[in-house]
Amino acid sequence: MTLHWTCEARDGDARAGMLHTAHGEVPTPVFMPVGTAGTVKAMTADAVRATGARLILGNTYHLMLRPGAERVARLGGLHRIIDWPGPILTDSGGFQVMSLAGLRKLDQDGVTFQSHIDGSAHRLTPERSVEIQHLLDATITMCFDECTPFPATEAQARDSMELSMRWAARSRAAFLPRDGYGQFGIVQGSIIPDLRRRSADALTQIGFEGYAIGGLAVGEGHGAMFATIDVTVPRLPAKAPRYLMGVGTPEDIIRAVARGIDMFDCVIPTRAGRTARAYTSRGVFNLRNARFAEDPAPLDPACACPACTRHPVAYLHHLFRAEEMLGPMLLTWHNVQYYQDLMRGLRAAILAGRFDAHAAAIRGAWAKPLPPDPSACGANTAAFDDREGQ
Amino acid sequence: MTLHWTCEARDGDARAGMLHTAHGEVPTPVFMPVGTAGTVKAMTADAVRATGARLILGNTYHLMLRPGAERVARLGGLHRIIDWPGPILTDSGGFQVMSLAGLRKLDQDGVTFQSHIDGSAHRLTPERSVEIQHLLDATITMCFDECTPFPATEAQARDSMELSMRWAARSRAAFLPRDGYGQFGIVQGSIIPDLRRRSADALTQIGFEGYAIGGLAVGEGHGAMFATIDVTVPRLPAKAPRYLMGVGTPEDIIRAVARGIDMFDCVIPTRAGRTARAYTSRGVFNLRNARFAEDPAPLDPACACPACTRHPVAYLHHLFRAEEMLGPMLLTWHNVQYYQDLMRGLRAAILAGRFDAHAAAIRGAWAKPLPPDPSACGANTAAFDDREGQ
Repeated sequence: MTLHWTCEARDGDARAGMLHTAHGEVPTPVFMPVGTAGTVKAMTADAVRATGARLILGNTYHLMLRPGAERVARLGGLHRIIDWPGPILTDSGGFQVMSLAGLRKLDQDGVTFQSHIDGSAHRLTPERSVEIQHLLDATITMCFDECTPFPATEAQARDSMELSMRWAARSRAAFLPRDGYGQFGIVQGSIIPDLRRRSADALTQIGFEGYAIGGLAVGEGHGAMFATIDVTVPRLPAKAPRYLMGVGTPEDIIRAVARGIDMFDCVIPTRAGRTARAYTSRGVFNLRNARFAEDPAPLDPACACPACTRHPVAYLHHLFRAEEMLGPMLLTWHNVQYYQDLMRGLRAAILAGRFDAHAAAIRGAWAKPLPPDPSACGANTAAFDDREGQ
Repeated sequence: MTLHWTCEARDGDARAGMLHTAHGEVPTPVFMPVGTAGTVKAMTADAVRATGARLILGNTYHLMLRPGAERVARLGGLHRIIDWPGPILTDSGGFQVMSLAGLRKLDQDGVTFQSHIDGSAHRLTPERSVEIQHLLDATITMCFDECTPFPATEAQARDSMELSMRWAARSRAAFLPRDGYGQFGIVQGSIIPDLRRRSADALTQIGFEGYAIGGLAVGEGHGAMFATIDVTVPRLPAKAPRYLMGVGTPEDIIRAVARGIDMFDCVIPTRAGRTARAYTSRGVFNLRNARFAEDPAPLDPACACPACTRHPVAYLHHLFRAEEMLGPMLLTWHNVQYYQDLMRGLRAAILAGRFDAHAAAIRGAWAKPLPPDPSACGANTAAFDDREGQ
């Protein structure tokens, strides 16, 4: 039986469920820490596990360039080399080709591009993207798509979406079903409701184990993002998991879970962890701020991570001021822990039928509205390459 | 009762013993990982503990500048903030003042200098150095001394040593004895046997809980270093622990343990860990080397650290090539683990009365003579600021 998802409870449109995979079960809603090049930056696999994370993301673009998909396969697959026997979702490479690679040339068959590392020439097609993800031994394979740039004219958005749908069919044909493995389609269509609906219908007709919403959090703004989610979600099969790619801040996640999204990924917790930006139950703080220099309290008294239980926040401040690696290490751990705790809390609230009250309590505990995160992919404040550039 | 050391066994001049401190017992011979600014670089305190390390080193110079000794005291002491309830030895600051600080001015009373961080003016005297180490809550306080530069004329070496001996008496007078805490004197005298003997005698007359040999591994070469150790050790009290400061490579350590040295510190394992240089039971390797790109074997099959038990060495190679933080994190952990295993092995061999055979077996397993380590403080290949600059 291929990878599948079972619904355990609904509260409004919010859903709690379980993803059943070849590499273990994953309670949803779930946030996937991003392990770009085969490592969740600044964390050991043990540390990632300690946060309760069960599913992580790897990047096809980065891994195909270095160390190389065939090499990963010869070494026993991504799970083996990175010490992550749990499930791994890999993206298709399309997003990074557009945001990172040089000299891109897109045609109907695929994309030719230059590596951002050494300028070498590479080509990705739907078939090759699926093959790479197979070589990596991805638990969840994503369809190769074109992430439509924003803004786009209606004609551009339509042509781009239709190309992605043809590529989705080819991606599906290239995918080898295996027990507990699965493949997700990706809805495109910019912020144009009719295109989004047509894309969702096209993917549903092909049939996938899950459905992602792509092409958002690329500068369209919160209003357009949530309006697009509202248009798309009802057209997706109720029995399949729904994945909002590249989102986002805690507030974005709460709002998207309320709309029936089950899966998320974003570089916010890891990137913020390297830049002294702490996500906590009381809001977002910059640990370089002098106010923390003598603060003996824990960063977040509600958190069980080592940064919070073992050290005063003044020590974290010191580590960032002294540019010690342990600062990013401890704060990344904390931020990933915060995101995992957030998801566990949302899931428990859905199961208990008190999602709205729980969401209100989370927001109420934030000292003030979260300031915009300059590194936030899901905050819609920044452009394309903020999502996966880490 | 102040900090003390008990001898458990001798094998030739090599000694196995136990250091009894307010913060726990430390089997000797012991290697202290260097925690310069309140962190063993790239390692959590849990990781340091997992290697079996029981005693770590902190740097007075770095900590007095940032976060500041009084601030550390207000936060509850170094043990508390860095999550290291075990014993901590702090150096006196003298070495870094000479190697890192700007605009130094030495007088009979102490040293005035500029911070290498922000140029601010500071002053260290024997009394202030001891006070700072008290504020940090150091288990072992080091005397404030002048690390005699190399080379030095006999007159320079004599004047410098005599100054350090006057400062040693003042350091001792300033030290507040507490149960399980102690203070070590530091033998100086460059590579001049008579000066070293006079220095050892002067310190013994003052009386300390332990005795360090300073001013070595600063460019004098292996021959002169070991000749100086051979002159000095017999003049030190047999009942007290002996500490060779800033040394060194595994080979240096084996040779010094054979001469009756009990304690070591060096930045080699941590600095090498950040620069892809691996210390292993089979020798020293640069993990950036292309020969590791597809190697599925562990870095060191004799090692129980996560880098060796969880990953193929090809993954470590990949992490360094991709400049991922996890490379330095895993390799630092491994190198510190290797050094701790080395010390445990030496200790067990002394207890079993087979030190020489064990040392020969270690050397035999190294694939070839160890190449010089460009970052090696104890290798005598590099200058002053290699010892503590990390």
